[in-house]
Amino acid sequence: MTLLRALDLVGCAVFAVSGALAAGRKRLDLLGVVVVAVATAIGGGTIRDVLLDRHPIFWIDDPAYLYVTVVAALATPALARVRRPPNDALQIADALGLALFAVSGAQIAERAGLAPAVVVLMGTITGVAGGVVRDVLSAEIPLILRRGNLYASAAIAGTAAYVVLEMLGVERRVASFLGMATVASLRLASIVWGLRLPVFHFPDDPEAPAA
Amino acid sequence: MTLLRALDLVGCAVFAVSGALAAGRKRLDLLGVVVVAVATAIGGGTIRDVLLDRHPIFWIDDPAYLYVTVVAALATPALARVRRPPNDALQIADALGLALFAVSGAQIAERAGLAPAVVVLMGTITGVAGGVVRDVLSAEIPLILRRGNLYASAAIAGTAAYVVLEMLGVERRVASFLGMATVASLRLASIVWGLRLPVFHFPDDPEAPAA
Amino acid sequence: MTLLRALDLVGCAVFAVSGALAAGRKRLDLLGVVVVAVATAIGGGTIRDVLLDRHPIFWIDDPAYLYVTVVAALATPALARVRRPPNDALQIADALGLALFAVSGAQIAERAGLAPAVVVLMGTITGVAGGVVRDVLSAEIPLILRRGNLYASAAIAGTAAYVVLEMLGVERRVASFLGMATVASLRLASIVWGLRLPVFHFPDDPEAPAA
Repeated sequence: MTLLRALDLVGCAVFAVSGALAAGRKRLDLLGVVVVAVATAIGGGTIRDVLLDRHPIFWIDDPAYLYVTVVAALATPALARVRRPPNDALQIADALGLALFAVSGAQIAERAGLAPAVVVLMGTITGVAGGVVRDVLSAEIPLILRRGNLYASAAIAGTAAYVVLEMLGVERRVASFLGMATVASLRLASIVWGLRLPVFHFPDDPEAPAA
Repeated sequence: MTLLRALDLVGCAVFAVSGALAAGRKRLDLLGVVVVAVATAIGGGTIRDVLLDRHPIFWIDDPAYLYVTVVAALATPALARVRRPPNDALQIADALGLALFAVSGAQIAERAGLAPAVVVLMGTITGVAGGVVRDVLSAEIPLILRRGNLYASAAIAGTAAYVVLEMLGVERRVASFLGMATVASLRLASIVWGLRLPVFHFPDDPEAPAA
Repeated sequence: MTLLRALDLVGCAVFAVSGALAAGRKRLDLLGVVVVAVATAIGGGTIRDVLLDRHPIFWIDDPAYLYVTVVAALATPALARVRRPPNDALQIADALGLALFAVSGAQIAERAGLAPAVVVLMGTITGVAGGVVRDVLSAEIPLILRRGNLYASAAIAGTAAYVVLEMLGVERRVASFLGMATVASLRLASIVWGLRLPVFHFPDDPEAPAA
């Protein structure tokens, strides 16, 4: 339980930073920053708990998650005044949050005894949902579907790696770490080197009209 | 239970195709296609189960829904390479999924002994929610509110027809079929012949400023 | 319970009007208007009940909420034909709904014995979620994050005021009224006089590129 809790707390903090940075790009006021940051940080885990019928939801059961999130959200603009955040800060924070939440979501589903396909899907949902909420709230095209980004794909690959390694008898801590490393490195490789999967499109459809 | 399960499985498959086609228009990669297809296919039923407190949720209880969805999602780009999908393929798949899910959602609410207005609303939510999730994820204006489209309206009319026919003593299978036929034919009539309901707008408000 | 029920019914009616007015700006058909109005009216309370695991959800338990919402939604276009709604009608209805739902959500969380931070968050979610659903369905940038609007901030301030007043021993009805007055007056002050909080942005980032 300690590892899981630590993963979730760190995941909340980095997603809160990513939400606060996204809100800063939209020039929201301070409480708007906090709202977007909280929604980003707790969105994925909240959807995971609702789908798995785990009540009380993690941040209702333990408000420490909220405090961590709010402090991280408020610290972001303060630190950004002192030192300008690097250009890719939002994407790096997002990649770490994705990795942490995807594996923690998969762990929880696995402990509930669910089928491997469900474990992978639950990890993916937990990882991507917070970022989707952030992007919808800040009226951005969701990162999850920007072309040439390994995003949901990274979460699927990493949680699948975690599930397979556990099946092979690898210790949970090691499997968790390797799963997270898979998510984060695929995601960062797609940002830095443009690593991507084949794209699906209709070959004879150059105009691609709206549906 | 067999009829309901069959409806839900077919509904998942056609919504998965509709999600995969929508993702193809956005030129997502293969796993992105799968993610949008899965979200489209299981979105409506998932929201239905959460609102009705039916746990475990249908695809957690029975991962066959996930397998059907993933296979349909992967088959869509493969088949699209062989033969270009017809222009209206997305809208037709969407109309069938809407019809299947609306009636299956209404059936489940009815079996839970809920009030007729709640049955109609639950059917409508089950039918339209997957498509809304698909449209939000792929950054499209939701089909549900494109002007001149009978969409939610078709779901409301069909589930209401189902409820009324059941009250009149019509056998459930027949009432289900007629309800689904109502949804699909209203929806397709609005696509093909432009059938529509009166539009509500402010008569003296030509500029319609943003709120 | 009577006060809570009355707040929720009035909140549903004013959010239904706000949803119907938003749908009117998009020239939806009559059933589309009803769908957007219902989603706006019951969205916040539904998310509150799901997060708190309160089943059956309020409108499943008591369909009167649905009837009030549908009647208010249908009455809006009818009245709008007789008399053009004032320019700010949407924003005023939205401010009242925000105030009513924020405090009713906080009350329910408080009765469940939750921590003060959770009470404030639950009130804020209950207040803003319906409007977010409305804005996402009608493809508008969510009001919650339009610059210079006190929106979520008003809900946070009002529910925090309610929580603090209750802690200080003020009677619940009085604390509720003062909390709602805080929400509505902050929100209206930001519309009328442009009252706002300091904005967070990166000082050296004039181009603010997309993430």
